[in-house]
Amino acid sequence: MLEIALFGAGRIGQIHAANVARSEGARLRYVTDVSPEAAQRVASKYGAEAVADPAAALADTAVDAVIIASPTNTHVDLIIAAARAKKAIFCEKPIDLDLLRVDIAIAEVNLSGVPFFVGFNRRFDPSFDRFATELHAGAIGKLEMLTIISRDPGPPPRAYIEVSGGLFRDMMIHDLDMARWLLGEEPIELFASASCLIEPFIGQAGDVDTAMVTMKTASGSLCHIQNSRRAVYGYDQRIEALGEKGMLQAGNWRETTVERWTKTSVESDKPPLFFLERYETAYRREIAHFIDALLGGKKLSVTANDGRRALVLAEAALTSIAKKAPVIISGER
Amino acid sequence: MLEIALFGAGRIGQIHAANVARSEGARLRYVTDVSPEAAQRVASKYGAEAVADPAAALADTAVDAVIIASPTNTHVDLIIAAARAKKAIFCEKPIDLDLLRVDIAIAEVNLSGVPFFVGFNRRFDPSFDRFATELHAGAIGKLEMLTIISRDPGPPPRAYIEVSGGLFRDMMIHDLDMARWLLGEEPIELFASASCLIEPFIGQAGDVDTAMVTMKTASGSLCHIQNSRRAVYGYDQRIEALGEKGMLQAGNWRETTVERWTKTSVESDKPPLFFLERYETAYRREIAHFIDALLGGKKLSVTANDGRRALVLAEAALTSIAKKAPVIISGER
Amino acid sequence: MLEIALFGAGRIGQIHAANVARSEGARLRYVTDVSPEAAQRVASKYGAEAVADPAAALADTAVDAVIIASPTNTHVDLIIAAARAKKAIFCEKPIDLDLLRVDIAIAEVNLSGVPFFVGFNRRFDPSFDRFATELHAGAIGKLEMLTIISRDPGPPPRAYIEVSGGLFRDMMIHDLDMARWLLGEEPIELFASASCLIEPFIGQAGDVDTAMVTMKTASGSLCHIQNSRRAVYGYDQRIEALGEKGMLQAGNWRETTVERWTKTSVESDKPPLFFLERYETAYRREIAHFIDALLGGKKLSVTANDGRRALVLAEAALTSIAKKAPVIISGER
Amino acid sequence: MLEIALFGAGRIGQIHAANVARSEGARLRYVTDVSPEAAQRVASKYGAEAVADPAAALADTAVDAVIIASPTNTHVDLIIAAARAKKAIFCEKPIDLDLLRVDIAIAEVNLSGVPFFVGFNRRFDPSFDRFATELHAGAIGKLEMLTIISRDPGPPPRAYIEVSGGLFRDMMIHDLDMARWLLGEEPIELFASASCLIEPFIGQAGDVDTAMVTMKTASGSLCHIQNSRRAVYGYDQRIEALGEKGMLQAGNWRETTVERWTKTSVESDKPPLFFLERYETAYRREIAHFIDALLGGKKLSVTANDGRRALVLAEAALTSIAKKAPVIISGER
Repeated sequence: MLEIALFGAGRIGQIHAANVARSEGARLRYVTDVSPEAAQRVASKYGAEAVADPAAALADTAVDAVIIASPTNTHVDLIIAAARAKKAIFCEKPIDLDLLRVDIAIAEVNLSGVPFFVGFNRRFDPSFDRFATELHAGAIGKLEMLTIISRDPGPPPRAYIEVSGGLFRDMMIHDLDMARWLLGEEPIELFASASCLIEPFIGQAGDVDTAMVTMKTASGSLCHIQNSRRAVYGYDQRIEALGEKGMLQAGNWRETTVERWTKTSVESDKPPLFFLERYETAYRREIAHFIDALLGGKKLSVTANDGRRALVLAEAALTSIAKKAPVIISGER
Repeated sequence: MLEIALFGAGRIGQIHAANVARSEGARLRYVTDVSPEAAQRVASKYGAEAVADPAAALADTAVDAVIIASPTNTHVDLIIAAARAKKAIFCEKPIDLDLLRVDIAIAEVNLSGVPFFVGFNRRFDPSFDRFATELHAGAIGKLEMLTIISRDPGPPPRAYIEVSGGLFRDMMIHDLDMARWLLGEEPIELFASASCLIEPFIGQAGDVDTAMVTMKTASGSLCHIQNSRRAVYGYDQRIEALGEKGMLQAGNWRETTVERWTKTSVESDKPPLFFLERYETAYRREIAHFIDALLGGKKLSVTANDGRRALVLAEAALTSIAKKAPVIISGER
Repeated sequence: MLEIALFGAGRIGQIHAANVARSEGARLRYVTDVSPEAAQRVASKYGAEAVADPAAALADTAVDAVIIASPTNTHVDLIIAAARAKKAIFCEKPIDLDLLRVDIAIAEVNLSGVPFFVGFNRRFDPSFDRFATELHAGAIGKLEMLTIISRDPGPPPRAYIEVSGGLFRDMMIHDLDMARWLLGEEPIELFASASCLIEPFIGQAGDVDTAMVTMKTASGSLCHIQNSRRAVYGYDQRIEALGEKGMLQAGNWRETTVERWTKTSVESDKPPLFFLERYETAYRREIAHFIDALLGGKKLSVTANDGRRALVLAEAALTSIAKKAPVIISGER
Repeated sequence: MLEIALFGAGRIGQIHAANVARSEGARLRYVTDVSPEAAQRVASKYGAEAVADPAAALADTAVDAVIIASPTNTHVDLIIAAARAKKAIFCEKPIDLDLLRVDIAIAEVNLSGVPFFVGFNRRFDPSFDRFATELHAGAIGKLEMLTIISRDPGPPPRAYIEVSGGLFRDMMIHDLDMARWLLGEEPIELFASASCLIEPFIGQAGDVDTAMVTMKTASGSLCHIQNSRRAVYGYDQRIEALGEKGMLQAGNWRETTVERWTKTSVESDKPPLFFLERYETAYRREIAHFIDALLGGKKLSVTANDGRRALVLAEAALTSIAKKAPVIISGER
C-alpha cells in the first residue's frame, strides 16, 4: 500500500485525492494547504491527516510519495524538499515558469534518484492515448503533418492572466508536450504568430489570446498548433496526424448523443464545457499509472525532462514573437 | 443507337428525357403528353418530335424502346400497346394500382417477350446499391433484421391522396420493393399498423399517413418498415441490416457539409428536400442501366414480377389493417 | 445521512455499493449475500458490516433503506420483508417474472406506504434523459412514431437463458419501460414477431433471440421495438422519435473518438462492449436520485407500477407470439 | 443567347463544354485545341465548330465570350487577344506563373474593359459557398482563426511537377485564394515551412510536397494553410473558422453514406477520389455564374486581381522558404 501526501487541496488536489481513494494500491496519509480548512475537508473525506507544514509530511518515513498540486510558484521548493526526503514525486504542470528554476529542481531530482512524474494529463485521455498508440505502432507510417487544436471555452480572469506566465507557458505548454510525445522526435525549428483579439486586458498584461505555432523536426515532419482563449461552444481539443499510409484524428466528445432534426437544421450537443469534464478519465488514469508504476517498480511515462522540454518550446515561441522570426532549437535532450 | 419514345412529359418524364440525352447510346425520338405544349417543349430541347398519339410513335419501326412516365391509370394500356409493337418497355412505378390489371399487363409482356423494366429508382441510389452489394456479398453473413425508414417531407395535397391508391400502394411500395430486394427471399407473413395523425383529409379519404409494417421470411429474418407522410426536416430515407457478422447502415445525405458550433449546440445541414434531389443520381443510373442492358443484350435488373410482388405486399398490408391480424403471403413467385 | 442495507454483493450489487460510497448523503451499513466472502469483501471496502441474514439488517432501526440486488427469484420475499420493516426500497429490475407475485409485492408496498423504486437504469442515461426531457417539453410536438433498438453484444449462456424468463421478460422489458416512459401514454395494442436465428439452445429452451414488437397507443402513436441477442460490434442502444415538428435521436457512444482514414475506408471505434460500460453514469445517477429523493422527501421517479406495467407488456408480447395475433391491452393503470 | 468559344478541349475544357451545353442561356460556337481530333470530338458533341486557330474564333463578331482552358503558358497571349477582340473572358487558374506576365494581361483587360473571370472553382462548391455566406453574414462574429486543409490523393508525375511552378503556385494558390476570400481582408505577413517527404523527384525538381503557411491580417486574424501532395484516403478539402461567436466547419463529402459496423470497428466511406468528382457541382455553378452575370450585366464575382493576389501570396511563400523568415506583404490591392 502506497502512502501519499498531497500538497494543495484546491480543485486539482481534490481530484487527485478522489482518484487516490478510488485506487486499490494507495491511500492518502497527509493533506496540506494554505487554507487549514480546505486541507481538513479533504483529509476528513479520505481518512487522512491535515498538517500545516509539508515538512511534517515529508518527515514521516511511512510516506512513499507526494502529489504537488499547490500553486506553480511553490512547485520547485516542494520538489527539492521531497527529493531530499526520498519521496516519489507527482508534480502538476508546469514544473515552474522559469527554466533556470526547473533545471535546479531537475538536478535535485536526478541527484536523489527519486521517481518523478509531471502531470501532463492529456497523454492519459483514452482517445489521445489510443491515437498515440496507433501512431507509434505505424498505423499511418512515417508521420508527415501533425495538427493540434486547443481552445479554452473562455478567457480566465485578469488576475489569473497576470500570474499565468502567458499563453505559451500556461496553455500551449500542454500542446507542446503533446507535439513532442506524438512526433517522437524533437522540433528543431519553431515559428509563432499571435494576436490579442478577445480581451484587451490580456494584451495590456503583455499576453496574447490567439496563437499559431509551426514547428519542424529533423526528419522534416511539420507540426501546427493553434490556441485560442475562447471557444464559446465549449472546450475544443483535437489532434490530427497525416502520414504516408493515412490519417489519424481524435476529436471532441459531446455532452450527450442526442440529435434534434428540425425544419431548419440538425442540432447535436456541444463538447463538455471544460477540462475537468473532458479529462475526468485522464486524471483518473494518470494517478493510476503513477501508483501502478511505483508499486510495480516500472518507469514513469512522463519525465522531468518532458516538463523541461515543453517549457523550452514555450520560451522559443515567446522569442519567435519578440524577434518576428523562426527560432532554431537544439534537438539535444 | 437506341431510339426512344417518351410517353409523359411531366416532372419525371423531363428527368428521364435529360438522362437519355446525357447518355452516349440512346436518343429521344418521340415525346407525347396530354398537353401538346409540354410535349413540344421537351421534344425541342432534345431534338425529338412531339406527337399527339403514342400509337404514332409505336408505329415507327425505328423506335426501339418506350419510357412510360404518364399517369398511373394509363400505364397498362401503354404497356400492352408497346408490348404488341415489340418495343422494350421502361415503366414508372407502380405498374397499376389494381393487381388484376397488373397481371394482364404482365401476361401481355410475357407473350410478346419484350424486355420490361419497372422504375424502382431507389435500387440505383449509390448508397443503397453499395449497401445491397455488400449485403449480398455476405459482408454481415446471414441477414437477421432489416429496418427501412422512409418519410416524405410533407403530405401531398388532397387531390393527390384521393387518386394515389393510398400510402401502402403509393409510398410504401418503394420500401416493400427494397425489402424484397435486400432480403433476398420473399416475406411470408406481414402485419401492419397505421394511423392518421398528420392531415384529417387523409383519414377522410380512407387513407393513413403514419404506418409500420413487420414482415417475416421463410428463413426467419424479420423486417420492419416505417413510413410517415411528414418529416419537417426533409426527405428521410434510411436502411439498416443486422446480421451474424455485423450491421450495415445507409443514411441520409445532407445539403452541405457545413457545421456551425455555437454557444448552444452544433448545427449541421438537413437532408435534401425531396426525391428529385435525393435520387438525382439514381434516376441517371437507372436510365443508364436500361439503355446499357438493351444495347448489350443483358437482363434488366428489375422485372415485371418485382413490380407485381411489391403490389401484392401493399395489398397484404391493407388486408392486415382491415382484419387487424397478420396476413400470410404465398412465397411462390 | 441515509443508512443503507445492500442485499446481493454480485456484479450489480458492487456497482450500487460504490455509488452509495461516492454519494455525500448516504452510507452502506450492511451487506448480505449467499456467499459470505462476497458480502465480506464489499462490506470491508466501504466500512459496512457483512451479515448472513437480511432479517438482521432489517431489524436494525438505524437502517433507512435497502437495495435489492440479489437474484430475481428472491426479490418479492425481500420486498415484503423490507416493506413490513418500513424501509425504503430500491429493487433491481425485474420485480419478478410472475405477474401475480409482482402484484402481491406491490400490495404489500402500498400497504406499508414505503417509498419504492425499480432500477430501470436506462432512464438515467444522460442521453436518454436529455431525449425524454426534450420530448416531453414538446421539442418535436405530438409524438407520432417511436423506435427503440436494443441489441446485446452476444447471447448469454444456456444456463442464464433457462432461468431468464425469456427475451421479452428479461431483455425487452427495459425497452418496454422506455417506450411507456417516452410515449407518455399506455400502449393499447401490441403485436410481436420473433425468431431464433443465433443459438439453437435458445430455441430449445422455448425462447427467441431476434424479435420485433409494434405497439399503438390510444392517441394513435406507433412504437417499434427491436431486440437481438447478438450485435458483434458491441452493445447497441438507440432511440428515435418522430413528431410533428421534427425528430429526436439518441445514438451510441463510442469507445474513443479516434478515426483512421486509410486507403480503403474511414474507421472509427465501436460502441462500448456492454451495459456496465454504457450505463456506468446511469447507475451512478439512479442511486443519486434514490438517495436525494429520500433525503429531500421527494417522489421517486420510477414506481412499482412502472415495474408491473413493463411486465404486462412483456406478457402481451408472449401472448401475441403464441396466438400469432395482435393483443389488446387495457390502458388502465 | 451567349455564343462561346472554347480554347482547349482537354479534361477541364470538356467539363466546361458540357456545362455550357447544360445551360439555357449559352451555346458553344467554336472549339480549338492543339489536337484537331480533340477539338472536333468536343465540337461535334455540342453542335459547335472546330477551328485550328483561336484567332478565327475571335474574329467572329457573333462570339460573345471565350473560355480559356488551354495550358497555363498560353493563357496570357489568349487573354490579350480576346481582350483586344472585346470578348468576355473566363480564364482557368492560374493566369500565369509569372507575376509580370499576369500584370501585362491584366493591363490589357483593364484597357479593353472586357469582363474577366478567373476559374477559382472552389468558391462555387456548395459547402464552401454556404460557409462563406454564413461567415460574411456574421454567423460567428469577428473572424479570429481560419484553417484550410488541402491534400491531393497522390503526387502528380514528375513531368507535371517540372512545369507546374511548384506546390505554392500550382496547388496552394487555390487555398491562398480561399483564404483571401474568406478572411475578407489582405494578409500582411506570411511564414512558410515545407519539406519533401513523399517523392524524391519532387525535391530534385526544387519543389516541396508537404507545406504549412501561417498568415496574419491587419486586424490580427491568423490563418493556417496546410498542403500535402498525398492523402491515400482521397482528396481532402476542409476549412474551419473560429470567431467570437462560434466555429464554422466545412468538411469532406463521402462516396456513399454506407457504414459497416463489425467486430473490430465502424467503417464508412472515403472522400471522393479527386477534384473532378469533388468539384463537379462547383464547375457547373461557376460556368452558370459566368453566363448569368454576362447575360444580366452583373459583376463577375472573381476578378483578375483575385488571380493576381493569390499569385503574390504564393511568391511570398517561396520567398519565406528561401529566406527562412516571415515576409511582409503590402495590403494594397
